Amino acid sequence: MGKHTPLVQQLIDALRLLPSVGPKSAQRMAYQLLERNREGGMQLAQVLQQAMQKVGHCQQCRTFCEGQLCQICTHPVRGHSAVMCIVASAADLYAIEQTGLFAGRYFVLRGQLSPLDGIGPAELGLDQLAKQLAQGQVQEVILATNPTIEGDATAFYIAELCKKHQIQVSRLAQGMPVGGELEYVDGSTLSYAFSGRKPF
Amino acid sequence: MGKHTPLVQQLIDALRLLPSVGPKSAQRMAYQLLERNREGGMQLAQVLQQAMQKVGHCQQCRTFCEGQLCQICTHPVRGHSAVMCIVASAADLYAIEQTGLFAGRYFVLRGQLSPLDGIGPAELGLDQLAKQLAQGQVQEVILATNPTIEGDATAFYIAELCKKHQIQVSRLAQGMPVGGELEYVDGSTLSYAFSGRKPF
Repeated sequence: MGKHTPLVQQLIDALRLLPSVGPKSAQRMAYQLLERNREGGMQLAQVLQQAMQKVGHCQQCRTFCEGQLCQICTHPVRGHSAVMCIVASAADLYAIEQTGLFAGRYFVLRGQLSPLDGIGPAELGLDQLAKQLAQGQVQEVILATNPTIEGDATAFYIAELCKKHQIQVSRLAQGMPVGGELEYVDGSTLSYAFSGRKPF
Repeated sequence: MGKHTPLVQQLIDALRLLPSVGPKSAQRMAYQLLERNREGGMQLAQVLQQAMQKVGHCQQCRTFCEGQLCQICTHPVRGHSAVMCIVASAADLYAIEQTGLFAGRYFVLRGQLSPLDGIGPAELGLDQLAKQLAQGQVQEVILATNPTIEGDATAFYIAELCKKHQIQVSRLAQGMPVGGELEYVDGSTLSYAFSGRKPF
């Protein structure tokens, strides 16, 4: 008897598709929506459906976009900036935008090179990136891929591409995170922090 | 520029209707669905819509149910059991069913008395409960409302109702949780555990 009704079970299973939602949280979500907020549940269903169908990608920088080009690419200054920041995902772009310290254009890879997962240059739109770099407008590329094996490989690949077009290329600094404690920082980060030390 | 597109923002806002989903988690959920699992997002939307529209409540015990009566109320033995367990929510019913130690019928209040929030006897279906108790089939009631002020008030109210119909009534034991450590148990629980101590 210890079973949910079929639809409630289906709802719990579907909610588990969301990241970091386990069986207990999914049950709590399902029960709360059913018990207290059916209107909210209907609204979520509708918005989900619309977003899944209508949110596309910017034809220039590949970030999320509902039209052909995103806000940044259509910006009169930023869209033609000589500085391009290359990020792995739209979430990374958003994080950088939140700091407000970059005023150039972006290119969103929507992934990082990972041959074992079948993610090669084509999946990351690197041919599209190569075309944009060949146009000569971009003079500097900032690589903001993650400091992971995949991120390193991706950065290396793109750096080669940039050198071919004589474009200046740099990568985000690696070292101690602000507010971090030396005792708890991992060894690789510490060794980066040492080798990249700056005169005081 | 640090803005999501309108639909992405709407999706993030809608996901925040789920319990314990803050702005950061909602963004992660939205981005992950958009980037990697649009099919899953569509499926969730569809199931949500169906569940919100079609999951109703059992006419006898008020738990979630897709027809008129739930599995337990239509069970040849349990549906006519002389023992009734009264719980605050369908989630509580599910938790008790998971232990497998109760084989009687239920009554789901779908809330607890809380006059300040406008939850009175009518909202908890207590008139419906009174009718069922008056039929004479139920001979014992187990009160499984939460050990909170609202749960106490609700239990007290229903206990009075039971006494009127000469029905035996008990409430779940309060005391130390299994695996708990005395040092970290709160004072009220400890005082319940003391006053309810059992001969060894």
